[in-house]
Amino acid sequence: MAHDPDAIAKLFDASPFVAFLGLKVTEVEMDAGAVTMIMPMRPELARGGPIEGQFHGGAVASLIDTVGDFAVALTAGAPVPTMNFRVDYLRPSGGAYLTGRAVTRRLGKSMAVVDIDVTDSQGRLTAVGRGTYSPKVG
Amino acid sequence: MAHDPDAIAKLFDASPFVAFLGLKVTEVEMDAGAVTMIMPMRPELARGGPIEGQFHGGAVASLIDTVGDFAVALTAGAPVPTMNFRVDYLRPSGGAYLTGRAVTRRLGKSMAVVDIDVTDSQGRLTAVGRGTYSPKVG
Amino acid sequence: MAHDPDAIAKLFDASPFVAFLGLKVTEVEMDAGAVTMIMPMRPELARGGPIEGQFHGGAVASLIDTVGDFAVALTAGAPVPTMNFRVDYLRPSGGAYLTGRAVTRRLGKSMAVVDIDVTDSQGRLTAVGRGTYSPKVG
Amino acid sequence: MAHDPDAIAKLFDASPFVAFLGLKVTEVEMDAGAVTMIMPMRPELARGGPIEGQFHGGAVASLIDTVGDFAVALTAGAPVPTMNFRVDYLRPSGGAYLTGRAVTRRLGKSMAVVDIDVTDSQGRLTAVGRGTYSPKVG
Repeated sequence: MAHDPDAIAKLFDASPFVAFLGLKVTEVEMDAGAVTMIMPMRPELARGGPIEGQFHGGAVASLIDTVGDFAVALTAGAPVPTMNFRVDYLRPSGGAYLTGRAVTRRLGKSMAVVDIDVTDSQGRLTAVGRGTYSPKVG
Repeated sequence: MAHDPDAIAKLFDASPFVAFLGLKVTEVEMDAGAVTMIMPMRPELARGGPIEGQFHGGAVASLIDTVGDFAVALTAGAPVPTMNFRVDYLRPSGGAYLTGRAVTRRLGKSMAVVDIDVTDSQGRLTAVGRGTYSPKVG
Repeated sequence: MAHDPDAIAKLFDASPFVAFLGLKVTEVEMDAGAVTMIMPMRPELARGGPIEGQFHGGAVASLIDTVGDFAVALTAGAPVPTMNFRVDYLRPSGGAYLTGRAVTRRLGKSMAVVDIDVTDSQGRLTAVGRGTYSPKVG
Repeated sequence: MAHDPDAIAKLFDASPFVAFLGLKVTEVEMDAGAVTMIMPMRPELARGGPIEGQFHGGAVASLIDTVGDFAVALTAGAPVPTMNFRVDYLRPSGGAYLTGRAVTRRLGKSMAVVDIDVTDSQGRLTAVGRGTYSPKVG
């Protein structure tokens, strides 16, 4: 009972915050319940400090939340409420863009659990997320 | 061995992402290791959807991460790396601004644990965060 | 629509694992949705190692899970499924017993969020938990 | 700079709580920083309730904590302190035994992040864990 990823993407793009982050879907794996998004660097997303060109952790968390939500939306048909998520920062997240790949671990009637890996443009794992979503929409 | 909150605030404000979020410190409780910040609504922080005027969860998470970090910085003297955090969304976060209050639960040599409560302008608890920070700076 | 704490306690005691842990309710605060339990040391709960008399982290996590569940059961009327929880270890948990106090932060129709503080017999905070429960029973 | 898994297993078995749980290492994958353990059912680990033969969530969490710690110990040489972990329960955990497989996602100087999957004897994923450990021992 999967939905059209392009139609879902339009719903996500209609969010001012998602549009600000510049998130773009680059791959959808329907069978795995997986979605990949990229987030390009823009000046407002930088954390600043001694080393230039690093994303702020809040931007990384926002990518994690959104791509995880999109994975659930493949079944639900629209963005769903996030119940909670955890993010672990493994390395500084620098470079021209970050890639977030969300994989659904469990999709129940009232609860979905999703894992999200974030890698930099050189393929290094920089952060991992795990979220619970409320897939009641569709 | 506390540091000057105003000096720390300048370091945080120097972060492009924190400046974009518009975060402002409104209270510092040195004895409790507690800090309160507000985040005013701006169009880019909205999640959109059927109900207008709600903050996106990623913006809420960013507030949580930053105010928690500031609580550790009271001792460390500067922003420190976030190791991980968890956010639970309890209600939609709407209104003209959100308030985040961070309280240090444990400040060790290599690890600090901080609790963060987020309330809306009517005082309703809308989200809770718990983060681990690496207080090695100072 | 609160339920009788003694009746709920009997349901919890009927769990072989809870009985093994020796958990006992010591206080119920109905208005706050709060419950306090103690877990006495017994040889099987020790983590061993160079310092004797410390509880294993798994036993601490089990206390956290159970007392948090009991707080939700005050409204639900019986033990409910744990969806997820996080535990942060702040100090070694030693001594004759541990005390876990659970406070309900949010009790919705399909989701409850509970905070749990663990203290040792000298009143030191040794661990903190935060759990999401599914309060559908009652 | 890996250590002998059998020597590490003896250190874990010396923990009264680990011995009580009956945990046994069944596979070590040195290159992946991965360890697999099984936990057989015993009456004290049951959660009770209407459906017999299910492990209590606290026992599942204890398996997660321990197998995750063992993965870090492959490098550290001995059990290390758990800083925090999160467990998500995806399905009831029933059957003759549970299997926990821990994979190290990041092993830094002061912090290791480990993912743990728990499956039942029929290979169904019943719980997932994610923990942060302090790999300072070895």
